Amino acid sequence: MASATIIEPSAVLTLPQPLVLDGGQQLEEVRIAYEAYGTLSPAKDNAILVTHALTGDQYLASPHPITGKPGWWSRMVGPGKPIDTDKFHVICANVIGSCMGSTGPASLAPDGAPYAMRFPVITIRDMVRGHVALLDALGIESLHAVVGGSMGGMQALSLAANFPERARAVMVIASTARHSAQNIAFHEVGRQAIMADPAWRDGDYYEHGKGPEKGLSVARMAAHITYLSEAGLTDKFGRRLQDRAEKTFGFDADFQVESYLRYQGLSFTGRFDANSYLYITRAMDYFDLAEEHGGLLAHAFARTKARFCLVSFDTDWLYPTAESRNVVHALNAAGLPVSFVELSAPFGHDSFLLDVPALDRVVEGFLG
Amino acid sequence: MASATIIEPSAVLTLPQPLVLDGGQQLEEVRIAYEAYGTLSPAKDNAILVTHALTGDQYLASPHPITGKPGWWSRMVGPGKPIDTDKFHVICANVIGSCMGSTGPASLAPDGAPYAMRFPVITIRDMVRGHVALLDALGIESLHAVVGGSMGGMQALSLAANFPERARAVMVIASTARHSAQNIAFHEVGRQAIMADPAWRDGDYYEHGKGPEKGLSVARMAAHITYLSEAGLTDKFGRRLQDRAEKTFGFDADFQVESYLRYQGLSFTGRFDANSYLYITRAMDYFDLAEEHGGLLAHAFARTKARFCLVSFDTDWLYPTAESRNVVHALNAAGLPVSFVELSAPFGHDSFLLDVPALDRVVEGFLG
Repeated sequence: MASATIIEPSAVLTLPQPLVLDGGQQLEEVRIAYEAYGTLSPAKDNAILVTHALTGDQYLASPHPITGKPGWWSRMVGPGKPIDTDKFHVICANVIGSCMGSTGPASLAPDGAPYAMRFPVITIRDMVRGHVALLDALGIESLHAVVGGSMGGMQALSLAANFPERARAVMVIASTARHSAQNIAFHEVGRQAIMADPAWRDGDYYEHGKGPEKGLSVARMAAHITYLSEAGLTDKFGRRLQDRAEKTFGFDADFQVESYLRYQGLSFTGRFDANSYLYITRAMDYFDLAEEHGGLLAHAFARTKARFCLVSFDTDWLYPTAESRNVVHALNAAGLPVSFVELSAPFGHDSFLLDVPALDRVVEGFLG
Repeated sequence: MASATIIEPSAVLTLPQPLVLDGGQQLEEVRIAYEAYGTLSPAKDNAILVTHALTGDQYLASPHPITGKPGWWSRMVGPGKPIDTDKFHVICANVIGSCMGSTGPASLAPDGAPYAMRFPVITIRDMVRGHVALLDALGIESLHAVVGGSMGGMQALSLAANFPERARAVMVIASTARHSAQNIAFHEVGRQAIMADPAWRDGDYYEHGKGPEKGLSVARMAAHITYLSEAGLTDKFGRRLQDRAEKTFGFDADFQVESYLRYQGLSFTGRFDANSYLYITRAMDYFDLAEEHGGLLAHAFARTKARFCLVSFDTDWLYPTAESRNVVHALNAAGLPVSFVELSAPFGHDSFLLDVPALDRVVEGFLG
């Protein structure tokens, strides 16, 4: 059995055909970088596609090449783990528009210069088109399951709706079928923070060595607050001071929560491309699965025969339980088998990435 | 009776004594700009002090001199209105640290140059010290009431705690006795957005004609989201597009909520000083009334004999009802008369400024 600790660089597939996009443009020579764990069965019927979140990547269960940290779902994926690589062949591909090897705004366009803002605006469905092209190349006609949290859940829903033959089971965690006004608003703050940074240079910063790091850092800080619950922040930091006994009556990071957020912002700039952040947040804001299917969410699921599992977290205020329930109602209306659980966890939206044993049991139980 | 539509510039008092601050410094020749409505009784016993919020000002019931808009609480304050200027002498003073006439970072220091970041970090209690010095100058020993929403509520609580003889009634709307980790986090994002703007120049932008407008605009956008409820944003904007039939597959403000937020950010920069934003958010983050009084909130109210009224809004996630309840419990423990109501209103934190007739009735009933 394959180990879950692969250290060689990601496999990269260059798609044989151009990718035709929702915006009407097409991308040539699209590269899809992916990691795979576990052995594909001779019948190629034991594959699970795990789809990643906004700032995630293909390093699902293997160390991140920049940060050296364990894969982002190492706790969930591996031999004997809930997504068991002794049983399943688990694939995770970097979404197009991102910056970890798949084609995105930092990639070279056919003219040899980075796309930058010449990169076409993409959608969640476009990301899924990339995944499906990868599955085609790998000869995988039908997935045992597609599993994703947050933006990964959007991809899972989009795959079920638009490529109904490609997955027999669909697991959607802490996600939504459409971005709300508040979701869009927070993303717009992040985009404006990046674009306000003079180092952004209308996106043409690649040749200047330094990008809009301050703007990207502010964007990450704002987003990061939405990933945590108010109670979780209070438990973790409260009003505790950072390495000092008294307030300084200045603008240093007096409070631990300030220091933590600044660190989150700064460390993010070392591993993520600002233009990718613009494009991926835009794709998420554009996501409205009902709108894509005549305005009725149940219509999106008219062609799939998959079974579904939806999971939400009681402290997630980014994609609250009501959003998952909305999907469940549509699946019920479409007559599909669906299980739904709201888990209690203190970590807010980020719960899907953290130590929530109940989630492990739900994932393991659903995947079989 | 005085009209509620005064158009002359604010009255300004220069304090006869330096203001000694919580940070240990003192400010010389402090100016307090204020507006007043209605007639002060010969016994000087009918005065109400209304305290303003973070980006508020003294233009309570008279047009704002920059925007030309009606005073921010015109619906609440005036002849025959809930805060009735036919009965009460209503005073509203710009807080120190702000930028509408009271001494703040944009004011000239004794050396003739703007304070900028040489301005001392102030606290909510320092703002209240400024108000009390104004009351001293006006010969008002005891207020009929102090009334404030949001940061105004913090000032009202601080006045009751630290100057217990100065108010006979205290009304605190949509506020809190301490800033939570999440509150601090959002403010820190705003400060970092301002400080990341090269036009901020470490605060020394006054001589350059142009300040950190982009950074301030991002700060305002992030904060503005916290003033509205998720449901309110959905009702007001949903996923509706702005003056277009289709998404543009670009980075313009396709969605109404994006356009609205950008407008909120940009228009704010025309009326507010970025350094004031830094100082006032810092004062709010430092606010913890229990900490000031030995760690027990009830101790803060040991010396006052005032009656209290607390109002929260069910959709306010910035200072949710639990924060008001926390204050009510402390007032109960201190044996003080307190009424408390959670009002239902769809507008989130901003409800205290908007058309909520139930609030009018509570205010009128409490003030008598």
